[in-house]
Amino acid sequence: MVIPDSQAQAAATGQDTRFDRRFSEILDYATEVFAEKGYEGASMRDLSRLSGISLAGLYYYFDSKEKLLYLIQKHTFTTIIDRLRERLATSSDPEERIRIFVHNHVDYAVAKQKAMKVLSHEDDVLKNGYGTELAAIKREYYKICVGLVDGLAQAENLSRLGRRASGKNGIATRTAVMGLFGMMNWLYTWYKPRIDPDAEAIASQVSDIFLRGVRGEETSNGRSAPRKSTLADPATGKRARKRS
Amino acid sequence: MVIPDSQAQAAATGQDTRFDRRFSEILDYATEVFAEKGYEGASMRDLSRLSGISLAGLYYYFDSKEKLLYLIQKHTFTTIIDRLRERLATSSDPEERIRIFVHNHVDYAVAKQKAMKVLSHEDDVLKNGYGTELAAIKREYYKICVGLVDGLAQAENLSRLGRRASGKNGIATRTAVMGLFGMMNWLYTWYKPRIDPDAEAIASQVSDIFLRGVRGEETSNGRSAPRKSTLADPATGKRARKRS
Repeated sequence: MVIPDSQAQAAATGQDTRFDRRFSEILDYATEVFAEKGYEGASMRDLSRLSGISLAGLYYYFDSKEKLLYLIQKHTFTTIIDRLRERLATSSDPEERIRIFVHNHVDYAVAKQKAMKVLSHEDDVLKNGYGTELAAIKREYYKICVGLVDGLAQAENLSRLGRRASGKNGIATRTAVMGLFGMMNWLYTWYKPRIDPDAEAIASQVSDIFLRGVRGEETSNGRSAPRKSTLADPATGKRARKRS
Repeated sequence: MVIPDSQAQAAATGQDTRFDRRFSEILDYATEVFAEKGYEGASMRDLSRLSGISLAGLYYYFDSKEKLLYLIQKHTFTTIIDRLRERLATSSDPEERIRIFVHNHVDYAVAKQKAMKVLSHEDDVLKNGYGTELAAIKREYYKICVGLVDGLAQAENLSRLGRRASGKNGIATRTAVMGLFGMMNWLYTWYKPRIDPDAEAIASQVSDIFLRGVRGEETSNGRSAPRKSTLADPATGKRARKRS
């Protein structure tokens, strides 16, 4: 059985009151409604129907739909970041630390696909106070990952990976980190627990692709360095250019 | 100036009628409305307001909101696949073919971020006939990519990459291909034309990460093969297990 995180947290701190359990339960239902109908399409009435809790009851716990989305997102990010910090404390090896990061994220993404869908889809919905607070949490999470990648680049002297690298044979840290987030965050669209490998295997494969990818040892067994793309536009014969 | 694809297409085939232009224009507006409010949250009335076309006028072109979403998705996928086939015809080199695939996809993703957002978010909305037809197109696209990856694995004898590979030091083709789609499809969430490298550079970096990643030459310069993750649950000291 899965124990909802907020319950587990509350239990751990001795705050497992009836209120907390109810609160956590409603967040789970709300995640389901938002994942199903989208934030814009979902209503407090839908949530009331699914959860069996009266509208008045819902408003007792939450003032608004906006607050609900804020709490879901905040809960998800803080859970992921808290677990990550605990796990990172166990290793100082740069490769291992990146593997820990990936494992921690994939673990959550695979266990909570609906929450990940809501996070991805409603990423830019919240404005003002809530939006600013969440943006800061996301920036913190992004920076942790950039720090880990910088740590690897420094430890292994990866000259082609860096903040300013781009284009010819270089990989920009931002592209690498966002690429990694893409690999992990896309999981909710395709991962099927019954047919796909478990979270540990997926995390290991994603880590392998990422680590080999940013290390860039493509010349080591006699293969040529990656060629600059020579894609030509079939219509004009000219090299493809960025459309704007 | 960007010429909408359907217009360009129509112009190329001499079908650039007033009807076609209007049709293509409405699809662009609809993409904007869906990207902004989500499919569930958007209404034909919103589209009417944004486009300045009367509701009656909209229904003259499209019977329903569902039909609009179907046409946006179908148009996007067929444009991407048609361009891809043309471009793939220019090369038989397995690495180059994968670079072509990535470049073609990234090119579109960067130029049409709103369309990519709608595709990602409303992926599972359409049911029955429309849904079945789109699922078939997406399967075709996925299979092209799997074919390219299989082609590379065969040509270079990449024994650890394959349909059944998993877990220990192996990479499953499905994980690799979905990871690649993740890197490319996540672009709409972060890519900023003004500060990030152009589509060609992004495509080149994503290709590099992917190609090095699946080739897996991590033992070639004396680094050890990727260790099996030894993540422990900080609470219990036990190895992390898949939550279910």
